[in-house]
Amino acid sequence: MAAVKSPLSDEALKVTGQALQGALVDLIDLSLVAKQAHWNLTGRNFKVVHEHLDEVVDLARAGQDDVAERAVAIGVNPDGRARTVADRTEIPQLEAGYLADDKVVAAITDVLAQVIARFRERIAATDEPDPVTQDLLIGIARELEKQHWMFQAQT
Amino acid sequence: MAAVKSPLSDEALKVTGQALQGALVDLIDLSLVAKQAHWNLTGRNFKVVHEHLDEVVDLARAGQDDVAERAVAIGVNPDGRARTVADRTEIPQLEAGYLADDKVVAAITDVLAQVIARFRERIAATDEPDPVTQDLLIGIARELEKQHWMFQAQT
Amino acid sequence: MAAVKSPLSDEALKVTGQALQGALVDLIDLSLVAKQAHWNLTGRNFKVVHEHLDEVVDLARAGQDDVAERAVAIGVNPDGRARTVADRTEIPQLEAGYLADDKVVAAITDVLAQVIARFRERIAATDEPDPVTQDLLIGIARELEKQHWMFQAQT
Amino acid sequence: MAAVKSPLSDEALKVTGQALQGALVDLIDLSLVAKQAHWNLTGRNFKVVHEHLDEVVDLARAGQDDVAERAVAIGVNPDGRARTVADRTEIPQLEAGYLADDKVVAAITDVLAQVIARFRERIAATDEPDPVTQDLLIGIARELEKQHWMFQAQT
Amino acid sequence: MAAVKSPLSDEALKVTGQALQGALVDLIDLSLVAKQAHWNLTGRNFKVVHEHLDEVVDLARAGQDDVAERAVAIGVNPDGRARTVADRTEIPQLEAGYLADDKVVAAITDVLAQVIARFRERIAATDEPDPVTQDLLIGIARELEKQHWMFQAQT
Amino acid sequence: MAAVKSPLSDEALKVTGQALQGALVDLIDLSLVAKQAHWNLTGRNFKVVHEHLDEVVDLARAGQDDVAERAVAIGVNPDGRARTVADRTEIPQLEAGYLADDKVVAAITDVLAQVIARFRERIAATDEPDPVTQDLLIGIARELEKQHWMFQAQT
Amino acid sequence: MAAVKSPLSDEALKVTGQALQGALVDLIDLSLVAKQAHWNLTGRNFKVVHEHLDEVVDLARAGQDDVAERAVAIGVNPDGRARTVADRTEIPQLEAGYLADDKVVAAITDVLAQVIARFRERIAATDEPDPVTQDLLIGIARELEKQHWMFQAQT
Amino acid sequence: MAAVKSPLSDEALKVTGQALQGALVDLIDLSLVAKQAHWNLTGRNFKVVHEHLDEVVDLARAGQDDVAERAVAIGVNPDGRARTVADRTEIPQLEAGYLADDKVVAAITDVLAQVIARFRERIAATDEPDPVTQDLLIGIARELEKQHWMFQAQT
Amino acid sequence: MAAVKSPLSDEALKVTGQALQGALVDLIDLSLVAKQAHWNLTGRNFKVVHEHLDEVVDLARAGQDDVAERAVAIGVNPDGRARTVADRTEIPQLEAGYLADDKVVAAITDVLAQVIARFRERIAATDEPDPVTQDLLIGIARELEKQHWMFQAQT
Amino acid sequence: MAAVKSPLSDEALKVTGQALQGALVDLIDLSLVAKQAHWNLTGRNFKVVHEHLDEVVDLARAGQDDVAERAVAIGVNPDGRARTVADRTEIPQLEAGYLADDKVVAAITDVLAQVIARFRERIAATDEPDPVTQDLLIGIARELEKQHWMFQAQT
Amino acid sequence: MAAVKSPLSDEALKVTGQALQGALVDLIDLSLVAKQAHWNLTGRNFKVVHEHLDEVVDLARAGQDDVAERAVAIGVNPDGRARTVADRTEIPQLEAGYLADDKVVAAITDVLAQVIARFRERIAATDEPDPVTQDLLIGIARELEKQHWMFQAQT
Amino acid sequence: MAAVKSPLSDEALKVTGQALQGALVDLIDLSLVAKQAHWNLTGRNFKVVHEHLDEVVDLARAGQDDVAERAVAIGVNPDGRARTVADRTEIPQLEAGYLADDKVVAAITDVLAQVIARFRERIAATDEPDPVTQDLLIGIARELEKQHWMFQAQT
Repeated sequence: MAAVKSPLSDEALKVTGQALQGALVDLIDLSLVAKQAHWNLTGRNFKVVHEHLDEVVDLARAGQDDVAERAVAIGVNPDGRARTVADRTEIPQLEAGYLADDKVVAAITDVLAQVIARFRERIAATDEPDPVTQDLLIGIARELEKQHWMFQAQT
Repeated sequence: MAAVKSPLSDEALKVTGQALQGALVDLIDLSLVAKQAHWNLTGRNFKVVHEHLDEVVDLARAGQDDVAERAVAIGVNPDGRARTVADRTEIPQLEAGYLADDKVVAAITDVLAQVIARFRERIAATDEPDPVTQDLLIGIARELEKQHWMFQAQT
Repeated sequence: MAAVKSPLSDEALKVTGQALQGALVDLIDLSLVAKQAHWNLTGRNFKVVHEHLDEVVDLARAGQDDVAERAVAIGVNPDGRARTVADRTEIPQLEAGYLADDKVVAAITDVLAQVIARFRERIAATDEPDPVTQDLLIGIARELEKQHWMFQAQT
Repeated sequence: MAAVKSPLSDEALKVTGQALQGALVDLIDLSLVAKQAHWNLTGRNFKVVHEHLDEVVDLARAGQDDVAERAVAIGVNPDGRARTVADRTEIPQLEAGYLADDKVVAAITDVLAQVIARFRERIAATDEPDPVTQDLLIGIARELEKQHWMFQAQT
Repeated sequence: MAAVKSPLSDEALKVTGQALQGALVDLIDLSLVAKQAHWNLTGRNFKVVHEHLDEVVDLARAGQDDVAERAVAIGVNPDGRARTVADRTEIPQLEAGYLADDKVVAAITDVLAQVIARFRERIAATDEPDPVTQDLLIGIARELEKQHWMFQAQT
Repeated sequence: MAAVKSPLSDEALKVTGQALQGALVDLIDLSLVAKQAHWNLTGRNFKVVHEHLDEVVDLARAGQDDVAERAVAIGVNPDGRARTVADRTEIPQLEAGYLADDKVVAAITDVLAQVIARFRERIAATDEPDPVTQDLLIGIARELEKQHWMFQAQT
Repeated sequence: MAAVKSPLSDEALKVTGQALQGALVDLIDLSLVAKQAHWNLTGRNFKVVHEHLDEVVDLARAGQDDVAERAVAIGVNPDGRARTVADRTEIPQLEAGYLADDKVVAAITDVLAQVIARFRERIAATDEPDPVTQDLLIGIARELEKQHWMFQAQT
Repeated sequence: MAAVKSPLSDEALKVTGQALQGALVDLIDLSLVAKQAHWNLTGRNFKVVHEHLDEVVDLARAGQDDVAERAVAIGVNPDGRARTVADRTEIPQLEAGYLADDKVVAAITDVLAQVIARFRERIAATDEPDPVTQDLLIGIARELEKQHWMFQAQT
Repeated sequence: MAAVKSPLSDEALKVTGQALQGALVDLIDLSLVAKQAHWNLTGRNFKVVHEHLDEVVDLARAGQDDVAERAVAIGVNPDGRARTVADRTEIPQLEAGYLADDKVVAAITDVLAQVIARFRERIAATDEPDPVTQDLLIGIARELEKQHWMFQAQT
Repeated sequence: MAAVKSPLSDEALKVTGQALQGALVDLIDLSLVAKQAHWNLTGRNFKVVHEHLDEVVDLARAGQDDVAERAVAIGVNPDGRARTVADRTEIPQLEAGYLADDKVVAAITDVLAQVIARFRERIAATDEPDPVTQDLLIGIARELEKQHWMFQAQT
Repeated sequence: MAAVKSPLSDEALKVTGQALQGALVDLIDLSLVAKQAHWNLTGRNFKVVHEHLDEVVDLARAGQDDVAERAVAIGVNPDGRARTVADRTEIPQLEAGYLADDKVVAAITDVLAQVIARFRERIAATDEPDPVTQDLLIGIARELEKQHWMFQAQT
Repeated sequence: MAAVKSPLSDEALKVTGQALQGALVDLIDLSLVAKQAHWNLTGRNFKVVHEHLDEVVDLARAGQDDVAERAVAIGVNPDGRARTVADRTEIPQLEAGYLADDKVVAAITDVLAQVIARFRERIAATDEPDPVTQDLLIGIARELEKQHWMFQAQT
């Protein structure tokens, strides 16, 4: 197949494609980190935090699909393979083994803050080149910021 | 927290834990591989294969949760972090960029065959040490073998 | 298409394939027998038995799909054609015409007992060659034995 | 139980009863043929045809119940036993073993065309003796003709 | 408001209107009779017959709405008032007080047979003047005949 | 069957039984009156009033079942036959033929007011003899008074 | 693809095809007219008529699919393109701009009356050549006549 | 009724109104074109493309309502009549008669590309005058671009 | 935790608390008795009575939760432990082993009559001290009396 | 419109009206207070208390509608305007800014206790004048007392 | 708890916080005003307007939660207490007592117009400081403008 | 009724029957213990633990039905009467009165560990005599071990 004919100029495509690929790596690793915590959690607030983490997983998985399909829709191939995610993720990684609930809450709060900061840069970067992509990123950012508040409120 | 008190002996625990950790890596990477193909697919059968791949993703994600939670339920910490998956996966990786539908069908058929072979080993290995875990692995293997048939039938 | 590559050895495949084909004929004819009774029933307990028979039909139809798809998934072609069913079924057949409710209850109790006996043989036979198939047959047997009890309790 | 008192005259009953019994055999065997193809299918269009065939099965099963219950409602005993279906069906039978998707599409198109021809005769035959039965047969014929078009369009 | 302008000729309207008004009285009283039995029932089969009667009530109530709205749609005012129903109904009435289940089954079988006979006359009468109304009456008759069979089968 | 053994004294039973039988006649005729208006309605507010009347029908039908089953539960046979309703109803009857929407709203407001007055008497009468019945009547009265307000608000 | 092999004779096909194509144009334009009114409506009864018009749209859209798929099922190509609809529609067109609610009710009543008249001709025309198509047209006509009554009742 | 008082200035209103009216014509004709292909389709991929086209129809119909109601909400009358659509549409029209599946996929890919180009112009045009309208158009464009990718991927 | 501060006076609390604790024991044992019969039932009416008993179980379990939570809401600790239920229940106990359907119907009728008698005493006792509790008990009593009628009607 | 004609005497109306108006102010402010805490909450138990507060909001909003519509149904105009609520509420107000979870639990426990006390007075006051209103207030009080227990249990 | 760490600069935070607090007061009072009208409404269009007002309530309540949670997510405490709403609302207040339907429609049209004007100012104000908040406000404004059109269309 | 004819030998029946009866007592008392804690709970984690306990109740109740019906299906009468449960249960009993949340979590963790140990013995015991029963016990054990982990994780 010939590459999908993009509705964007080459320059716009490059900027937008980078924003989407970056968002994809963030969201895949966010889902892996949240699941790792979901499984290895311990502590008095186990049940609540265990279930709360799955809200983050759901959000991250829905976001993955949206940004990857947006990328290919404008003619950029998304890369969500394990090696790519492991090598390029900027999310601080969790330790192996049991994870105490208060530490998980702090860690996820921190992870979300960092991901949000990168999303805000991507929102700024795509404003001119592709408002359709920007609108998608804004929607995901709103959900991330809501989760960030809810985790931070527990600290 | 003290480690979860396992209902298994140390030896049984070791064998069962390895089976579950291996299954976890297989299932996480299966979901990533299937999503990568889901996004970068092209060809006359795009729509059908695109949707069929999401059935594999759903199966792999449901399986991840079951094996990881089974692991921690018997006192073994599951490890589903990006680095762990990237380093330990034995699943053959897809190329970056567009993927033709017939090649995807062949690749997924092959991936499933390999994963199934490892699951059959894990089923044999857990028969004595933990029939509860074995029963879980049998259930997942049946779903994997059904998907394997459906992909192979298209080749 | 080349035959589906089976995860089983030839010997295991033969035993398992026979068990599944036998189960398929049993389940298709069970559904036909139960429908025949469902339609031609008479008697004081018509309404209850009429509806109860459809539970058997549902169970038999769901089981058909599972065993036939299990067969092809391991590389054996299931045969559920009318002639095959008519020639190979071992289920005692109903008379044509109206069927009194108490006789139907007795007949279905008997049919289920015979089918169950054959399922128990298949469960024993597949224990070694294919525990995945065995697990499927166990699940269907449990449902058949539950229906057998409920019909027998009415006699 | 005495035979159900029919709202039809003897002559009308005979014609209508034959139409319904013929329809019953057609619909039971149509469901068996479509399931046989559903299970043994191969080819590039496996997934779509596999699922499409289940639409035919659903239609045929719903139709079976309607015509059989219509028969008994007017005082005629429907006969849907395996032997009856195998002996009386006029539907051309499928070969055993794997079935290529394009051949299945052609075969089902042909099977549906033949069943439809017989339904149109039954519709004509029941116009006078029992418009209630005719209305039921018209409704089923419409569904069969819709499926016939959809299979034929793929050839 | 001026009368609804009918799509039918005066003669067709008269015949069709009478058929619909007759059907309305039959269906309202059928629902009242079935409820009376539903409430005052006794006997070994209480639970089944009690619930079965509500199927008749549901059918009769849905039919009432359809025939009454059909009447006004062609410009005839339906009359479903208590006095009209009580004076014009031809359905044999139940005794006051407790009603034994076998007598109820026999009575409802008889009531349905009589209502069906009148519906068959209305179907014949409306064939020429209004096939749209005829089609509606045929649909209701099929349901009534199905219930008639199921009650008769219990006698 | 012997009469249902009542948990009430003879005197309490008589008062409660009369209240329930009266309520039954009111609710059956209310449903018939509301349906008659539902079908023959005309005027600018046709669609709204047409649908609003069905809320009254639903309320009246649900109430019928509750009061009749309450009656038999305490050992009193409810009588909801057409003749009984026509002879004993105190609800003012509608004219035959088309009914203008404003007149319908006024008529239903009036009907509801009268029914409510009788329910309030029944609530007072059953306070001592059977608080369980009283509670049921209070619940229905609340719904009737809510509908009364909503119809009156349109006048 | 060769043309779909029709179950009808050439003459029957021609008559039936014309009836279906005519019905298709009527139903597509009915949906466009009803939406135009839905959007540009004003007046005291805005909310009710606005929502009522969407019932007509739903009916017209469901009918379009049924008649177009019926046409192709018997071997006639339906034509529902914008130019075809604009040139062949016989439905009187609405003015541009705001539309008062009472005028909309009158206009839709008139549109429905005209469409119904043409449907009744098509029902008569297809009686001999194709009772299956006739049955479909009767079903749609019943819904159109019900909506016609409900709009006319508001005038 | 006086015109809806717009929250926009005259100039902003004119630009926004034109964007919405253009979008309305695009979306109505897109739904007609997709339905025409849905009905007249043939070819090996009939079933998949047939169903895929209905996703486009659903998207186009939901979009029609949103843009037309947005237009009237800011005080501009939308015009979605058959004549307007036929005369103003810029979408390339399909031939009459059967349409091969690969040609349909190519044609729809092309139609979507053209519609998307016009939506991107409308998004640019409404940025200043009405960000609320722009946000609506961005949302629809995202869906159109997703469908465009999925059709193009099949070519 | 300090004891829940009750909104009732000490005297009112004592009376109300006893009524609720008594109701709790009745309802827990009612659910155990009904399940015991549900499992060990035999006879011609097996299927109907088997399912009917589960309605009693559902009612008893919902009631348990309501009365126990009502108790603690007013500051009284409910006691639903196995020993407490076994020692304090006044419900006549079933024999071990198979239970014939007619005997079960008679036994449950009797059990319900006794439980109802105690509920009526509790309703009388709580009228003054706590109308909120009384209202809850009345609601449960109504359901118990309805089931009592339905079981008694089968004797 | 003339005032709604009340089914109550003037004196009864006055007492009942005051009870309902008081309940309305309590319930509106309860919903505002619970939402204020829902939004500004912090602390280890954030997630649980955050969601628990929305149960109180749902209860309070459902109660508002019931008491206000009950008021107008008996002829008294409910007043739920912001100024009325702010001036007449007796509920202790929360501070602005962040609210720690344990303080919120204590505050809501206290608020509920005060509201419950006023509801118990209203239940006593309406016993004679209007048992229908009393029954409504009892139902709401039960829900409030259940929530009171659940908040108090956390202190 | 330390204040939530905001992703915004102090200046951006101040502007955005004011916009959100203003929106919160508008939306809370809009829900109170719409409920007040919902309860005290009278007139020929009572039923339609009564239900239409609840659409406004639902919209306003959903919006409250979104803006308040957005505020706290960026580190600003929302204030939705009764006193705050009563003192700061700029929405014109309704009279106490019955409200005629045409006056309510006019009043709500006017209220919505004023709220929309303030939302448009907030959308302009937040464009630079926080596009995520702006996107939320745009979404609410679109719904408000749609309701404004629908109310205005009835005047 | 004669005893259900068991598909098992006498010896197999005895072993399997004991395993099922033991499991039944465990599961009934587990549901009672969990409800007792559900009702009498106090402490900071009240809400979470209160709801978590109901997951255990649901699991235990579903398990009761499965093991009891399995027992009777193989010809053994299950005994779930209050006295039997109280006398034979090996589950450590809770104190009467309020129960602090941390003590409940520890107690339930301990109860589950003991029940699991007995289930593992029953799984081993039924491996030879009845693999169908074993499969059922394995499925319940998996759920119990999952809950055990989740409670233990909170300690």
